Amino acid sequence: MKNRVITISRQFGSGGRTIGKEVAVKLGIPCYDHEVIEEIAEKSGFTKEYIEKRSEDVARGSWLTGALFGREYAGYSAQDYVWKFQRDTILELAAKSPCVIVGRCADYLLKDEADCLTVFIHADMDKRAERIVKQYGERSESPEKRLKDKDKRRAAYYQFYTDTQWGIAGNYHVSLDSGVLGIEKCVDVLVGLY
Amino acid sequence: MKNRVITISRQFGSGGRTIGKEVAVKLGIPCYDHEVIEEIAEKSGFTKEYIEKRSEDVARGSWLTGALFGREYAGYSAQDYVWKFQRDTILELAAKSPCVIVGRCADYLLKDEADCLTVFIHADMDKRAERIVKQYGERSESPEKRLKDKDKRRAAYYQFYTDTQWGIAGNYHVSLDSGVLGIEKCVDVLVGLY
Repeated sequence: MKNRVITISRQFGSGGRTIGKEVAVKLGIPCYDHEVIEEIAEKSGFTKEYIEKRSEDVARGSWLTGALFGREYAGYSAQDYVWKFQRDTILELAAKSPCVIVGRCADYLLKDEADCLTVFIHADMDKRAERIVKQYGERSESPEKRLKDKDKRRAAYYQFYTDTQWGIAGNYHVSLDSGVLGIEKCVDVLVGLY
Repeated sequence: MKNRVITISRQFGSGGRTIGKEVAVKLGIPCYDHEVIEEIAEKSGFTKEYIEKRSEDVARGSWLTGALFGREYAGYSAQDYVWKFQRDTILELAAKSPCVIVGRCADYLLKDEADCLTVFIHADMDKRAERIVKQYGERSESPEKRLKDKDKRRAAYYQFYTDTQWGIAGNYHVSLDSGVLGIEKCVDVLVGLY
């Protein structure tokens, strides 16, 4: 029988990671987020920092060049290699036990491999800006610019590897506005639905 | 103080109307759906059938021509008139008491006028096809064609009058897949969030 897995896609700064962790605690199942990166690092030999930059959004500077043009080995880019290790890792984690997986196109990767509840967490720009400044501090770039940039790169990555549009309601079983509903209510809804 | 209103946008055949009615019953508040059409008919002098065709999606045959080119009176099309009466009706209903309003761009119209929980209900093509055949019977056109056609017209109407894209998760507080979650769970989530 396939394991029940909650996959959480989220806009940057929406609190999707926090929601995933709290849902997992309440359900008594593991939540994988950075753990996925550690696994990939171990398997692939890439450093964690390198993977972090290439495992979820199109790496800064490289834009799509890494994925589209920087094909270093037999037509594959380094980003494609990370993708392959990421895919294997996520399939293994989902096969091991019920769990929550945050980000990393898990919804797409596990479509036929697990009994998924696919979730998208989003919030208004204002609420997210407030959150990232609180969480990651001020930077020289405005929080709005950081959010727009990150969203754009995340969406491009998702679209490139899944051929599906990011953030379309029809692609998720549940989409929630964490800015309006609040983190706790989002957690309650997901625990209730699981 | 502004009234609390649940607005339900939905893909054709997703059961959004049924969900709205059940949520309203459980909360003990009115649900407006066809009632909006009756109100508009009374105010505007148009027949109910005429309004039904123009109050939510771009009228068949006319496509956008009604809205864009068929500007009969001082630059307004008949569809624009229906829109104006619809707008007034929805604002009045939301001002009267807490309620559920199904469709008709109520989320957009009430953005600053009510304390809204904005909802989008969707489901896979297969599930919706099954539902419309059960509910409205077979037609000469395939259910898939009917669904695609209706979705397209509803999206075009929404975009034309609200300048916002229909079905984008970020535009609603909650989006639910009624095909996977089932009508009852959707009702429970919304009652819980209200």
